[in-house]
Amino acid sequence: MPELRQDPLVGRWVIVATERIRRPNEFSDHQNHVAEPAINPFAAGNENLTPPEIFAIRETGSQPNGPGWKVRVVPNKFPALRIEGQLEKEGEGIYDRMSGIGAHEVVIETPRHDCPLEEQTLEGVVSVVDTYRCRMTDLLKDTRFRYILVFKNFGRDAGATLSHPHSQIIATPVTPTAVKQKLLGAQNYFERKERNIFSDILKQELKDARRIVYQNAAFVCFCPYAARFPFELCIMPRRQSADFFRIESVEVQQLADILKVSLLKLRRGLNQPQYNFLIHTAPARYVKKGYWATIDQDYRWHIEITPRLTQIAGFEVGTGFYVNPVPPEDAASFLKEVEV
Amino acid sequence: MPELRQDPLVGRWVIVATERIRRPNEFSDHQNHVAEPAINPFAAGNENLTPPEIFAIRETGSQPNGPGWKVRVVPNKFPALRIEGQLEKEGEGIYDRMSGIGAHEVVIETPRHDCPLEEQTLEGVVSVVDTYRCRMTDLLKDTRFRYILVFKNFGRDAGATLSHPHSQIIATPVTPTAVKQKLLGAQNYFERKERNIFSDILKQELKDARRIVYQNAAFVCFCPYAARFPFELCIMPRRQSADFFRIESVEVQQLADILKVSLLKLRRGLNQPQYNFLIHTAPARYVKKGYWATIDQDYRWHIEITPRLTQIAGFEVGTGFYVNPVPPEDAASFLKEVEV
Repeated sequence: MPELRQDPLVGRWVIVATERIRRPNEFSDHQNHVAEPAINPFAAGNENLTPPEIFAIRETGSQPNGPGWKVRVVPNKFPALRIEGQLEKEGEGIYDRMSGIGAHEVVIETPRHDCPLEEQTLEGVVSVVDTYRCRMTDLLKDTRFRYILVFKNFGRDAGATLSHPHSQIIATPVTPTAVKQKLLGAQNYFERKERNIFSDILKQELKDARRIVYQNAAFVCFCPYAARFPFELCIMPRRQSADFFRIESVEVQQLADILKVSLLKLRRGLNQPQYNFLIHTAPARYVKKGYWATIDQDYRWHIEITPRLTQIAGFEVGTGFYVNPVPPEDAASFLKEVEV
Repeated sequence: MPELRQDPLVGRWVIVATERIRRPNEFSDHQNHVAEPAINPFAAGNENLTPPEIFAIRETGSQPNGPGWKVRVVPNKFPALRIEGQLEKEGEGIYDRMSGIGAHEVVIETPRHDCPLEEQTLEGVVSVVDTYRCRMTDLLKDTRFRYILVFKNFGRDAGATLSHPHSQIIATPVTPTAVKQKLLGAQNYFERKERNIFSDILKQELKDARRIVYQNAAFVCFCPYAARFPFELCIMPRRQSADFFRIESVEVQQLADILKVSLLKLRRGLNQPQYNFLIHTAPARYVKKGYWATIDQDYRWHIEITPRLTQIAGFEVGTGFYVNPVPPEDAASFLKEVEV
């Protein structure tokens, strides 16, 4: 019997469609080919093909915009938003708009084209996670920005246009709607129950255990109860903190570990599926009042990993109603056993 | 300069990314190949390969589940939801679920495999639209259902698994989140202004004219101000009505005309792009109180047509924040000129 499950945070219902159930090996045909440029602008030695670097983790003595880097951050050559200019807001009849002020950066995760993030050494993944933290901390100094998004698109269907391992950072002058819904859901829950919803979710998941994929000292990786996608994963910190950028050094190590293991399990178990991940963190809070005054107690940052094994149909885009053919318990029990 | 635009109904911000602007002919490479079964279950003569029909428009004298039909509705062989059973709801710790009761039907739009909806005669499209209306009217009699979704997926990336022209109907026991957001947005607008937001949008679009693609006596087709996708279209009725199924006969003719013209403009102008369309109608209202008591004055049914010319990246799924590389004004002025 199919089942409807509700996401406890945003109230979204998901159809777990057992009549359409598919085995992990039925997801192995991926069309993840990304059209490649003749010369790879992200490879070591081609630093002159990108805009000048904003940040890099480099070998001692190496020069900016030359080789010798481990992780390199550059402005996106075709940015969705622009860093220069005033943030201007205006009405247009019943409509509202503002100038497209923001930042759009590319995190080149390694100089090696053939080494995906999860195949890097633990130290390599630590460098990438630490780069996210540094860039987010820096971008938050710009008071024009309300939200800093860190995300990764791997594969054509997941939105990637280059295959060289990279992730992206976008700073926006507004808080995205879907983020607002999460914040409001967490706030409502706390108001009603005097408890943090993320803490409640984690407790129930650890007790139930059927949806846990992997855990370490600081983080737990599980398939969400109302997962929208087959093999969707959530990485949640054990320590209450609304802001990703406040992650501690020891947590960076632990996060690199759980991110590497989670992504490797997907790669080994499902034949290198396309995927996205997104760090859900709290918005900037220059003004500690109104809406987000209680965020430190009611919201917790976390990471969503969404493999792209099924197409996102019009139905899903138009209604926010997802059909997931793989029950999260089955997905977790499969991934738990994948050796990495 | 890129621009952020806000959807007036749901408050979602969209980035109109002028730095990433693309010309219509840059969207012409579609990977819309759908893997075909050896025998097409939707073709005339193969009626025994589908479950028995629920509804059909047939030649006089032709028999159910045999040839002689123009439009045929059958249960989905792999339904997301099941029609049989009790609607049971239960909690599971902090989570909520209900049994997957619902309907999932396939509307086979024509017996001809090679005749897409928009290439049918006007009379053919009228039959399809009228079938949507009949099925929705019938499904609304089942008081277990809260919402009836009519939608079409064309092409692999848009979620289609068969290429024979068809659309789908899903009846759900809950109102989808995205629909609820639209309803609440419309309600808030009316409360603040004592005006219907759809009427205000239509007035401004007709006055401004830059985003209008086509119009007839009963409907207007335009590119929404805060379009999420390149060449996204909205078909809006001129007459206030919350419910699609209350469409009048003369409006069915007009809707068939504007749907045919809009889809043909996409097909001719953009080399048969993949697309989705979705009829946004009001939920069932057995109980006229609370939430949806004012729906007849504040909400209006409409159709969203979303070509799938760009990939939906993790960023979009995770944040609800879309990046659209084609300003809606450019999209409309291009489509307006496409001869059909």
